[in-house]
Amino acid sequence: MNFSSKLLEEAVAEVARLPGIGEKTALRMVLFLLNRPEQEVERFAGALLKLKKEVNFCSECGNISDAPLCSICTAPKRDRSLICVVEDSRDVMAIENTRQYKGLYHVLGGLISPMDGIGPSDLHIGKLLERAGKGEAKEIILALSATMEGDTTVFYLYKKLKDIPVLLSSIARGIAFGGEIEYADEVTLGRSIQTRVPYKGEA
Amino acid sequence: MNFSSKLLEEAVAEVARLPGIGEKTALRMVLFLLNRPEQEVERFAGALLKLKKEVNFCSECGNISDAPLCSICTAPKRDRSLICVVEDSRDVMAIENTRQYKGLYHVLGGLISPMDGIGPSDLHIGKLLERAGKGEAKEIILALSATMEGDTTVFYLYKKLKDIPVLLSSIARGIAFGGEIEYADEVTLGRSIQTRVPYKGEA
Repeated sequence: MNFSSKLLEEAVAEVARLPGIGEKTALRMVLFLLNRPEQEVERFAGALLKLKKEVNFCSECGNISDAPLCSICTAPKRDRSLICVVEDSRDVMAIENTRQYKGLYHVLGGLISPMDGIGPSDLHIGKLLERAGKGEAKEIILALSATMEGDTTVFYLYKKLKDIPVLLSSIARGIAFGGEIEYADEVTLGRSIQTRVPYKGEA
Repeated sequence: MNFSSKLLEEAVAEVARLPGIGEKTALRMVLFLLNRPEQEVERFAGALLKLKKEVNFCSECGNISDAPLCSICTAPKRDRSLICVVEDSRDVMAIENTRQYKGLYHVLGGLISPMDGIGPSDLHIGKLLERAGKGEAKEIILALSATMEGDTTVFYLYKKLKDIPVLLSSIARGIAFGGEIEYADEVTLGRSIQTRVPYKGEA
């Protein structure tokens, strides 16, 4: 595109780096911000910077949290015998929205993906094994996307967890193959948690 | 949505205020930024703030520019007898991309829209009349969207400009009715500039 201003070009380039945002959409967003009062743009930029600088991740489950322990890990009413393993915080929110699950979570922070150079050591897996080994959890539910990376991660976790006396289950694959958890509708996602199937050793 | 963090919720709310961005997309964008190194988030926020604080608008045509006069107004090769009137800088970029137009521009900064409380005095119209009255421009091309606001603005400009000895034309309405100029394909947009039709007094 033919920008009349270097400043504009730089701002558009930054916004176009976001996932799913092309150059035209980025330009539309940047010009929208440019038309807003300066204090609104400052609030916008400030909210993102503040989040990045001050965000905490729960030391227990890895979920985004303002406190050292997240509100789910500290809630007295949650069922501490259940741990649901998910890829990221969006999945926690998606499952919480179904109101079908009352256990705890464990956020991996990604999936194993050799293509992207993401190995098991890049994920929050050590802490999961530590939590599983403590004996409080009776069941670990794997709620990972039905993609190649999700299956690879399930297989890796199965191998690591199979000697720990805890039931390993997977959410029912009622969600479409190749689909991502966060975009499943609430009814399907809620049902797939209720109809989870125990592993029979084939992973 | 059920946010586990106030900081996250605030950042998502700010991003969701952008045009065409819903809460889920905003969350995806915010979590993407959260996974990037801090300096990258600073660069992102900084580029937007810098644009807002330091951006200039060309004192002649109103286009976004880093200098007091934009690169189009100062280019010696442009045809100074033509002024193309557009809604905003995106339209200038869209028309420049067609490489079919070598005249000057005039950016109104919006369209007359009583519903949104935008009247002629909110737009960059006084300067257009001043430029038209100087005698250098022989033709003024109105390249405004074929919407109710666009038509209202065309009618207003026609009334203001009809006593000035300058040819008033409109880009050919080859673009779909109700469509917005910036989203027309380059061939259609380029042709509609070439086949512009002079006003015959009915506006």
